[in-house]
Amino acid sequence: MTYCLAAKLDAGLVFVSDSRTNAGPDQVNAYGKMYTWGIPGQCQFVLLSAGNLATTQQVAARVYRDIENAAVPNLLGTAHMEDAANHIGTLMREEQLRHCGAPLNQGFNPEVTFIFGGQIAGRGPELYLIYPQRNFILPPDSAPFLQIGEIKYGKPILDRVIRADTPLEEVLLCSLVSMDSTIRSNATVGPPVDAVMYYRDSLILDRYISLAGDDPYWDALRRCWNERLLAAVRVLPPIEYERLGPAPERH
Amino acid sequence: MTYCLAAKLDAGLVFVSDSRTNAGPDQVNAYGKMYTWGIPGQCQFVLLSAGNLATTQQVAARVYRDIENAAVPNLLGTAHMEDAANHIGTLMREEQLRHCGAPLNQGFNPEVTFIFGGQIAGRGPELYLIYPQRNFILPPDSAPFLQIGEIKYGKPILDRVIRADTPLEEVLLCSLVSMDSTIRSNATVGPPVDAVMYYRDSLILDRYISLAGDDPYWDALRRCWNERLLAAVRVLPPIEYERLGPAPERH
Repeated sequence: MTYCLAAKLDAGLVFVSDSRTNAGPDQVNAYGKMYTWGIPGQCQFVLLSAGNLATTQQVAARVYRDIENAAVPNLLGTAHMEDAANHIGTLMREEQLRHCGAPLNQGFNPEVTFIFGGQIAGRGPELYLIYPQRNFILPPDSAPFLQIGEIKYGKPILDRVIRADTPLEEVLLCSLVSMDSTIRSNATVGPPVDAVMYYRDSLILDRYISLAGDDPYWDALRRCWNERLLAAVRVLPPIEYERLGPAPERH
Repeated sequence: MTYCLAAKLDAGLVFVSDSRTNAGPDQVNAYGKMYTWGIPGQCQFVLLSAGNLATTQQVAARVYRDIENAAVPNLLGTAHMEDAANHIGTLMREEQLRHCGAPLNQGFNPEVTFIFGGQIAGRGPELYLIYPQRNFILPPDSAPFLQIGEIKYGKPILDRVIRADTPLEEVLLCSLVSMDSTIRSNATVGPPVDAVMYYRDSLILDRYISLAGDDPYWDALRRCWNERLLAAVRVLPPIEYERLGPAPERH
């Protein structure tokens, strides 16, 4: 499994992804799920993936190849984020279909789900969730984030914190906490954690960090959050004892 | 969907359940999912259910009928918690099988999953998760709680807080917070929230509370938790800017 998330804020974009892949419990590996492409000052793109690793790697390889060959279209030649998302979606669909229905593929699923975002000069940043069916959606305005993979464990904190005007740094920290909660509760999500902040109109991706499982900062962040949560439980308003009564019979 | 949870602590047992049922988005209702039976000083039992509402109601009705008829076995006549769980499991299995394979049942699922716990005089409290297949498990010693239904949203806080020696009151508050997070993030879980604390060897169930969606205490609890979480995000160790760098190309 996987857990990736991204947010679209007034100030820019934030992307965070884990690195655990598994094909059964005895085939667990670490593969980054964040791919980036860009030309400083012109365009920047980030792709996060959940699902079949081979499909993901093939899509990424084809994005690179199309750029190298100056194919039409190629990612760095697109003029709209929507065209860029369509390009990614087309490659994704082709790669999925290549491996569907093959005779040896019982129980095999070539599908991937992507989060794809970025900015092209002269236009605003955009963020999409691209479904295996190749269609895509924007994040909702009221809760401007997207998640793929093991999304439930880490969703409550995002629901509480992320609004369009939340600063990028706060969204990054909250996303790391969301990732930590997921890693603690689900063995199929794991470090290193890749994270990048993209500042609106900067057209450069230079705020990237990778946090290994034994990274001292990651450790400090996790410990701080854990301590604060335990402390928060202890200051909750105590249950009103005078209201407690016999459990009712329910027929 | 549903969210129910229970914990087995040194000090006793805690049970919490939501009340939302839905058979499609235009058939949403409120039904309590907590059933209790007992004889003060002799035995106390609590059942929480997820899954098919009709099956659940039939199982509960049969438990009552068997008690009324002094059937052998009946829940209040069992001498071991394991026998009690087996009795519940047998009724569950029979009710599920009654509705399997009927000709009009395409897409219909009569299955239920239960959390069942309590205490019988002279023995320790016990807690079980009873699967639709009728077999059951105890909670793990390291994380002595069980969940059924929409379990993922509310799991991280339980993983952090609940240990065998955590006081009942703290586990209750943490369980209510876990329920709140689930309700906020998933529309198929909703109030009223039923909660009961059972003190070891008390053999009475007199610490029950039902919290409606507009209950002032429930509201205060939710607001307090939300504020504490937002505050906790704000005091996380800030990202180390000097470590941020260009996003790597990943081939």
